[in-house]
Amino acid sequence: MDIKDYINENESRFMDEWFSLLRIPTVSSCAANKPDMEKCAVRWQTLLMEAGFDKAEVMPTAGHPIVYAEKIVDPSFKTILVYGHYDVMPPEPLELWKSNPFEPEVRGGHVWARGADDDKGQSMIQLKAFEYMVRYGHLRYNVKFILEGEEEIGSPNLNTFLKANCRMLYSDIVLVSDTSMLAPDLPSITTGLRGLAYWEIEVTGPNRDLHSGHFGGAVANPINVLCELLAKVIAPDGRITIPHFYDEVDDLSDEERKMLSDIPFDEERYKTAIGVKALRGEVGYSTIERNSCRPSFDICGIWGGYTGEGAKTVLPSKAFAKVSCRLVPRQNHETVARLFVDYMQAMAPDCVSVKVTSLHGGEAYVCPISLPAYRAAEAGFYKAFGRKPLAVRRGGSIPVVSDFEQVLGVKTILMGFGLESNAIHSPNENFSIDIFKKGIEAVVEFYRVLEM
Amino acid sequence: MDIKDYINENESRFMDEWFSLLRIPTVSSCAANKPDMEKCAVRWQTLLMEAGFDKAEVMPTAGHPIVYAEKIVDPSFKTILVYGHYDVMPPEPLELWKSNPFEPEVRGGHVWARGADDDKGQSMIQLKAFEYMVRYGHLRYNVKFILEGEEEIGSPNLNTFLKANCRMLYSDIVLVSDTSMLAPDLPSITTGLRGLAYWEIEVTGPNRDLHSGHFGGAVANPINVLCELLAKVIAPDGRITIPHFYDEVDDLSDEERKMLSDIPFDEERYKTAIGVKALRGEVGYSTIERNSCRPSFDICGIWGGYTGEGAKTVLPSKAFAKVSCRLVPRQNHETVARLFVDYMQAMAPDCVSVKVTSLHGGEAYVCPISLPAYRAAEAGFYKAFGRKPLAVRRGGSIPVVSDFEQVLGVKTILMGFGLESNAIHSPNENFSIDIFKKGIEAVVEFYRVLEM
Repeated sequence: MDIKDYINENESRFMDEWFSLLRIPTVSSCAANKPDMEKCAVRWQTLLMEAGFDKAEVMPTAGHPIVYAEKIVDPSFKTILVYGHYDVMPPEPLELWKSNPFEPEVRGGHVWARGADDDKGQSMIQLKAFEYMVRYGHLRYNVKFILEGEEEIGSPNLNTFLKANCRMLYSDIVLVSDTSMLAPDLPSITTGLRGLAYWEIEVTGPNRDLHSGHFGGAVANPINVLCELLAKVIAPDGRITIPHFYDEVDDLSDEERKMLSDIPFDEERYKTAIGVKALRGEVGYSTIERNSCRPSFDICGIWGGYTGEGAKTVLPSKAFAKVSCRLVPRQNHETVARLFVDYMQAMAPDCVSVKVTSLHGGEAYVCPISLPAYRAAEAGFYKAFGRKPLAVRRGGSIPVVSDFEQVLGVKTILMGFGLESNAIHSPNENFSIDIFKKGIEAVVEFYRVLEM
Repeated sequence: MDIKDYINENESRFMDEWFSLLRIPTVSSCAANKPDMEKCAVRWQTLLMEAGFDKAEVMPTAGHPIVYAEKIVDPSFKTILVYGHYDVMPPEPLELWKSNPFEPEVRGGHVWARGADDDKGQSMIQLKAFEYMVRYGHLRYNVKFILEGEEEIGSPNLNTFLKANCRMLYSDIVLVSDTSMLAPDLPSITTGLRGLAYWEIEVTGPNRDLHSGHFGGAVANPINVLCELLAKVIAPDGRITIPHFYDEVDDLSDEERKMLSDIPFDEERYKTAIGVKALRGEVGYSTIERNSCRPSFDICGIWGGYTGEGAKTVLPSKAFAKVSCRLVPRQNHETVARLFVDYMQAMAPDCVSVKVTSLHGGEAYVCPISLPAYRAAEAGFYKAFGRKPLAVRRGGSIPVVSDFEQVLGVKTILMGFGLESNAIHSPNENFSIDIFKKGIEAVVEFYRVLEM
């Protein structure tokens, strides 16, 4: 049977199954939803078995369980590992929803519910493509399926799980449907993500808060010093001044710049959407280059001294900031973490002490477009959407992608079908039923044409 | 009768009266102490009448009452207005006190209690000097006495009271005992105070918090911009860069610098006391010059973005700071307030909007040492302490001094007898009984030699 026919014949069942997941409020950050997490994991286990997996298990972690399923067609075959997550973001503010976030509704050809896209809808696409392949598609790969319940809270237990189960999870490629396309008529595949380095800075001046009248002008104020230090990290041309920071940063090739400039982008609309009159960044680069392919330095938080109502004069003892760099491929986050610590220490005047703690980091990711699995994903989008997808790099980080590369040593294909208008993490999350169907077709085509 | 004899003869009564005030917990910031404020005001009223005033009243304000007393010896005489306050700072942390803060104890020749110095002890010195003058001293001036109950919370109702009662308070000089000397064997009179200008800054970037991965590098981060702006306000040589900021700042004369350098000052001890390895300030000026006679710029508070536990990436919508300048004589605080607002607006890049609000300000104060009342105070210290007091300028502001100058048009003599070791505002506040007595002698001498 043809995939289109299969979808049409089974559409109402697909919807029922999808809705059965959406009705379970799997807010991973909410302790009260703990029983729902278990319930949803078990529901997935059933759906996975019904779709044709040989086995499906709900495996405990220190947090919410992970669902694992596998179909070993032939041990000598190559293996695809599909990743998704069954947890969702909190639905608040509830008053902005047009319908109950946990009672899915179809309106205007879209399904409206928390998780309709992220990631219950997209995971369902993967499940139904697999189901078709088992029944009518001549599956030439082993397939493993892993669904976690903690993606929206930073996957605190995934890395441990991967390490503990790396034999079970052995695979040749990871397939993830958890990202977006540029537009319904402009399919795209995310091929690059930025890495991250994150620090907390503590500047200590005097041993207690001082009277700014009695001491001001003679004793260094740690907030003043913190501002001075942080202001030096970005030069007037937008370059980051940390010594050796750019040593491993490759400049963009002409081909890459051409590809990036092909991505439709309306700067006026972008500015209007975020409410700014002007943009600012590294001189010599476009906005898309700046926010996806070039490193950045942001102060994520700052605090110190008196922050209450009115005017209280104080020369505080301490000042703090949380700062981060987005990194690009080949920049090692641990190296950058050290470079920044050294830089701050070197710049710190002797009138204060400066402590810099590295809190968190992750490597950038790049999926080479020459990879057979990338070509297969490209063919899938072409078949379903009638247009070759653009390869785009994104400025954010998806920690699980780094985990798969570092723990399992395997590349990830981000075959995502979301849209900006799907409002993930916001009220009125939704997913187009048309794109849901096209997604299934695209993944089926991926299975068909993939040659590893 | 000689003043020394009078003090010796009446010492135990003086102590009883002083202690009766110290036992009333007049913490002006504590709503639960409201009845105690009233009680203490009434107690003062009684003491004032007993000391020899013609009348004494407890006068209501929008906050705690003001006690007012007067003795009109002859309407054609000149008038001295004595100012003090009966409220105190909170005693917390209580566990650090060696005895109950509101049960005065004598140990080692000192009285230990909250308010022992600030300002119940010092106000008592004024009262007892007046009492002696009435009984044995041939009083050649009219004397008015005002005690407020809100000095420690910023005197929110004093200015209004002064304006409403300026005829009643008409005087030729104000005498205040609420400051400190350099050391018991090194008497000093505060002749200058710095002024203040205080602003809040709000920097707004995007219309909501953005994902620092998706936008970082392309959109200006308001915390980064705030740090850049604030870092520019002080040049590497420690000079404030606000245009025209120094236009009205007089450089110190050789004589003034000589007087300042005569003040004993141990820089190593100063650094050790506040726990810093190095000091920092305007190039070309000593520490004492920097913290008392030169203007300063301090960031009193800063906040924005994520300030909780751990690593959260965000490109925030807003960043805030509270900043202040200490000003020196001839700098008008309103002019400086405008200069800073203009400076920030001129420097603000068009990728953010910057709002600067002037919250508060006050003029600097200088008491010319040629003033007859200054010379009389000098003579008083000389007589009681055996040494001519040094004229010192202080870096802080005493708002009531500005109020007296601006509302009543009268200069203030800060004839204070405190010591750094008296621990005002801290646990174990205390006052030396020996200095208490010498203070009375000094004020009596002031009355005797003053020729206005």
